[in-house]
Amino acid sequence: MALDLKPAPLDEANQAYFDKCMEKLGFVPNVLAAYSFDLAKLNAFAGMYNNLMLAPSGLSKLEREMIAVAVSSVNRCYYCLTAHGAAVRALSGDPILGEQLVMNYRAARLEPRQRAMLDFAVKLTERPHEVEEADRAALRKVGFSEQDIWDISAVTGFFNLSNRIASATDMRPNPEYHGQAR
Amino acid sequence: MALDLKPAPLDEANQAYFDKCMEKLGFVPNVLAAYSFDLAKLNAFAGMYNNLMLAPSGLSKLEREMIAVAVSSVNRCYYCLTAHGAAVRALSGDPILGEQLVMNYRAARLEPRQRAMLDFAVKLTERPHEVEEADRAALRKVGFSEQDIWDISAVTGFFNLSNRIASATDMRPNPEYHGQAR
Amino acid sequence: MALDLKPAPLDEANQAYFDKCMEKLGFVPNVLAAYSFDLAKLNAFAGMYNNLMLAPSGLSKLEREMIAVAVSSVNRCYYCLTAHGAAVRALSGDPILGEQLVMNYRAARLEPRQRAMLDFAVKLTERPHEVEEADRAALRKVGFSEQDIWDISAVTGFFNLSNRIASATDMRPNPEYHGQAR
Amino acid sequence: MALDLKPAPLDEANQAYFDKCMEKLGFVPNVLAAYSFDLAKLNAFAGMYNNLMLAPSGLSKLEREMIAVAVSSVNRCYYCLTAHGAAVRALSGDPILGEQLVMNYRAARLEPRQRAMLDFAVKLTERPHEVEEADRAALRKVGFSEQDIWDISAVTGFFNLSNRIASATDMRPNPEYHGQAR
Amino acid sequence: MALDLKPAPLDEANQAYFDKCMEKLGFVPNVLAAYSFDLAKLNAFAGMYNNLMLAPSGLSKLEREMIAVAVSSVNRCYYCLTAHGAAVRALSGDPILGEQLVMNYRAARLEPRQRAMLDFAVKLTERPHEVEEADRAALRKVGFSEQDIWDISAVTGFFNLSNRIASATDMRPNPEYHGQAR
Amino acid sequence: MALDLKPAPLDEANQAYFDKCMEKLGFVPNVLAAYSFDLAKLNAFAGMYNNLMLAPSGLSKLEREMIAVAVSSVNRCYYCLTAHGAAVRALSGDPILGEQLVMNYRAARLEPRQRAMLDFAVKLTERPHEVEEADRAALRKVGFSEQDIWDISAVTGFFNLSNRIASATDMRPNPEYHGQAR
Repeated sequence: MALDLKPAPLDEANQAYFDKCMEKLGFVPNVLAAYSFDLAKLNAFAGMYNNLMLAPSGLSKLEREMIAVAVSSVNRCYYCLTAHGAAVRALSGDPILGEQLVMNYRAARLEPRQRAMLDFAVKLTERPHEVEEADRAALRKVGFSEQDIWDISAVTGFFNLSNRIASATDMRPNPEYHGQAR
Repeated sequence: MALDLKPAPLDEANQAYFDKCMEKLGFVPNVLAAYSFDLAKLNAFAGMYNNLMLAPSGLSKLEREMIAVAVSSVNRCYYCLTAHGAAVRALSGDPILGEQLVMNYRAARLEPRQRAMLDFAVKLTERPHEVEEADRAALRKVGFSEQDIWDISAVTGFFNLSNRIASATDMRPNPEYHGQAR
Repeated sequence: MALDLKPAPLDEANQAYFDKCMEKLGFVPNVLAAYSFDLAKLNAFAGMYNNLMLAPSGLSKLEREMIAVAVSSVNRCYYCLTAHGAAVRALSGDPILGEQLVMNYRAARLEPRQRAMLDFAVKLTERPHEVEEADRAALRKVGFSEQDIWDISAVTGFFNLSNRIASATDMRPNPEYHGQAR
Repeated sequence: MALDLKPAPLDEANQAYFDKCMEKLGFVPNVLAAYSFDLAKLNAFAGMYNNLMLAPSGLSKLEREMIAVAVSSVNRCYYCLTAHGAAVRALSGDPILGEQLVMNYRAARLEPRQRAMLDFAVKLTERPHEVEEADRAALRKVGFSEQDIWDISAVTGFFNLSNRIASATDMRPNPEYHGQAR
Repeated sequence: MALDLKPAPLDEANQAYFDKCMEKLGFVPNVLAAYSFDLAKLNAFAGMYNNLMLAPSGLSKLEREMIAVAVSSVNRCYYCLTAHGAAVRALSGDPILGEQLVMNYRAARLEPRQRAMLDFAVKLTERPHEVEEADRAALRKVGFSEQDIWDISAVTGFFNLSNRIASATDMRPNPEYHGQAR
Repeated sequence: MALDLKPAPLDEANQAYFDKCMEKLGFVPNVLAAYSFDLAKLNAFAGMYNNLMLAPSGLSKLEREMIAVAVSSVNRCYYCLTAHGAAVRALSGDPILGEQLVMNYRAARLEPRQRAMLDFAVKLTERPHEVEEADRAALRKVGFSEQDIWDISAVTGFFNLSNRIASATDMRPNPEYHGQAR
């Protein structure tokens, strides 16, 4: 049994946010519904998520979703692999890329920049205590800026957070994700 | 070399926040300084941090700091072990407890509730994909509520995020932490 | 670059086999094409495969495909997850089940028999040297016969073989699998 | 208790096979006896085994047995280490080599070709999802052909199969192996 | 190349010790020769070794050798597996037991007392930080005294030391061990 | 409950040793008290310890203590991290260095010689079976002699022994260590 937490009544801003989800996606992502038992926590989560995944960055939105999936694959997170696998398929127009990142990112034919980005994200997920200057240097070498490295690190960190909340609470993805962009 | 990111000028609210840190701690924690290259990211991070660690919860502030240290020990995060190890020493008045959680939480003589809490946090950190209903049941059995389980999960998730940002960017703790509450 | 091995001319029996694949699937699975550089090896592989996956057994064909996917998930094998994930979707009529087994079989809501079956297959894949009598007893307890246990072990063993050949030779799944039974 | 499966009556071809074992080895290997509960499975297993270990190849029979032992050492398979350890001792005329491969192949003084071969087999056994083009390139560099790489991969895969069947069914080696070629 | 350290001239006591080895074993064990570059180190090592392995104890000499081999198997130490595998064969009069402990102690048919002893030794070798009161309780339950538990721990610790010195210095076992007690 | 072993009456030499501890440290280290149930074992342990940590060596006493802490960090040994962490703080005059080695030695800003020394010690602790000539060569390259390599190996081995005895017996460090040299 997943956690039994009752949703709080939405305030105006969050009602608008959920309405926009319904309008654009056809559903409210279950992660937002899960957080809605406490609007302050919902706001903190959504604030960080939107900043990381949607704000301007040297990483494209697709690249940030690629990191999300590669990290979630290490952690074998059912929720995040489903939701962000769909996002990679949609943003890339390449459904096979989405599957490869879910299964084993090494199987994807990536350009060196994106391969270096995912190598860093996966090492930081698996063995954070072994990340050192040489790992940052490998990112600089393929052209990433200082802020890009921050963004790669922060997106990697964020999915190490959300993978764990999803697993800990048995969060289930909306079934709509499955068929998207196949 | 850590990341070379220039701090942005602080807005009024963050200036007040940093001033309050100086007044209460005698220094601005380096993690806040690191995030200050982008105030939107600083706000998102501080917002989530303050909600998790300071808002009302069925977990005491000390218990939340204990999770922080046990998780950071798995990930061997120098920054977080230093800063939150000091917090455990200060909040518990037991400097040895702080050291035990840094080194191996199994060496601490904990009451069953806190031992179950840290067992869950450590498993969720090491093997999130293996966390299942039996793990939640073990928390309920020692008296944790549904929301408490959320909070344990969320604090565990958060330090899995911040450990990785600290390692990825070679963030260094303020030296003042070291001597606190010994 | 994958291995550069030239297909041998097919003999009559294998030509008929490949023709039947074309007729039933619309394509010849790349694993068969890969083996066709040496018809004796193709015959040995196909003989074992067909015996394990198609011959009468106390395990349904779906159950054997479920083992294939759970094992391939541990080994992160792109080829086998793609081809056998499609088979689970098709045989179960439950596309979500296929995805769950690819991502983390613990997320699927399985009846105890199938859960025990996959727990055994995954332990045998990850830590074969720790499989002992208690593990066999757990299978007997949910109703598996002696021969069923053999079959679970043999299917698990077989995908530990084919996952490694696929990874070692960079074998790529036919793109047709991806869209099947979604 | 190992699996309780009753041997089927042997057909003529398998009777001849078992007779030949008795004549040449003085015993029927227990793995064949174990498979004899189902002659179709016995044929499939023996067919693949004989093709891999005895058919013409760029790898000598000794080299194929060396892979068998190095793989079985990773998986700590009592049956296969015993039977194939004896084969390495016999084929090499070097009893110490057999022991080294059982214990830790890195302790053997191997020529670069054989060391590269075993490094590949061991990585493919331990971390198949991390095998990539660079690993194949290392084999080509010491002179292995495309088909040799296939053969190294296939022998490695095969013992990852048979190690698991032996462990899953508590298969015990014939005691005769122990004293052979010491 | 192993370490290039010149043996020191033996003092009288060590000359007598080495002479006794020659007389009883027909050779001086290479570990003693390796340590003889510094007689103080040789004395410290031999003193601890002889106390642990030969002094009166609730563990038989065979049991202490069984621990030596099970620990050395985890650490894959060529020197110690060879020398102490021979000792298990000789002391038990059961050459197969010696092989089983080298390969996978779980394959040996042990009485519960000895199985518990090796389970403890192997856990203490693989995951010392997870050994807790429940592990000691399991030893008490099969009849081990407080001092027996100390002795199991100390022998386990000692081979975790000597395995590492042997691996670090590429120490090679005397070839005579191989054929002993087969 | 730790082991219940009654201290033996001290002989003159050990009484003098314990008195000297009281005089110099203000307490008798609990490890010595633990061993005092059997003076022969105490003598063997203290003899090896004093030779390794105090006798002349190409490694400074601080360097030997640095190895002690880095090894104990891998093994998460509460006793040894506490006692030898204090020693690093005292001998280096740098309390932060002591903390860094407890938490993650990679976070310390070490000169190449000491970094190579700890890389070797940590690899030898985590994966002794993978230590080979290249690892010794890396030590020679930064200037370590043959005997220095022996000493690095022997100190690493020794703490792999004492970490395990401490964990196996639930040995607790004297509380005085905690506040020393902060």
